[in-house]
Amino acid sequence: MEQKEFKHTVFFWLKNPDNKKDRDVFETSLFYFIKNSKFIKTKHIGIPAQTNREVIDSSYTYSLSLSFNNKEDHDKYQNESNHHKFLEECSKLWTKVVVYDSINIL
Amino acid sequence: MEQKEFKHTVFFWLKNPDNKKDRDVFETSLFYFIKNSKFIKTKHIGIPAQTNREVIDSSYTYSLSLSFNNKEDHDKYQNESNHHKFLEECSKLWTKVVVYDSINIL
Repeated sequence: MEQKEFKHTVFFWLKNPDNKKDRDVFETSLFYFIKNSKFIKTKHIGIPAQTNREVIDSSYTYSLSLSFNNKEDHDKYQNESNHHKFLEECSKLWTKVVVYDSINIL
Repeated sequence: MEQKEFKHTVFFWLKNPDNKKDRDVFETSLFYFIKNSKFIKTKHIGIPAQTNREVIDSSYTYSLSLSFNNKEDHDKYQNESNHHKFLEECSKLWTKVVVYDSINIL
């Protein structure tokens, strides 16, 4: 099996990014899922930083940046029951999601 | 100083993504810069993975995902001389760059 690091990066745009209840539901569900995943190597759940050059997109509400030891671990993560639970609980809260998956070449 | 992890994520779309010489110039310059930075905590230079769900954008040529101990280290990285050298050598090679900066809330 190929052991190149797999990076899974997601940006979420919530319908109501200033609604505290929506944010609480989203954070609680995502934190639970991420903290209990068996396959994640490193994790970062982010909000936009205070930077503002022209090339920066800071319009998103939350980011998720996960690394896995390999694509196989990522694929197992996609099928964890807590992942499906998170999507059921939270997909109604967002208007847009963009995912970038990449393989490390360093 | 606030010690929340800062994540700097960049996607590059090269003008000629299939041109080996352009890729070699880009990779050589980026690798040199990243390997010699004094401020980066973790690093990932990626190419699109073999995943293809509807929400996935795999149109980019290269990704860069860097973490820093805090925003101050990121700001110093932005001003490293090798960073400026990379931009001089390579900005002509791409048509589009998108940057997402985020602060960890985990």
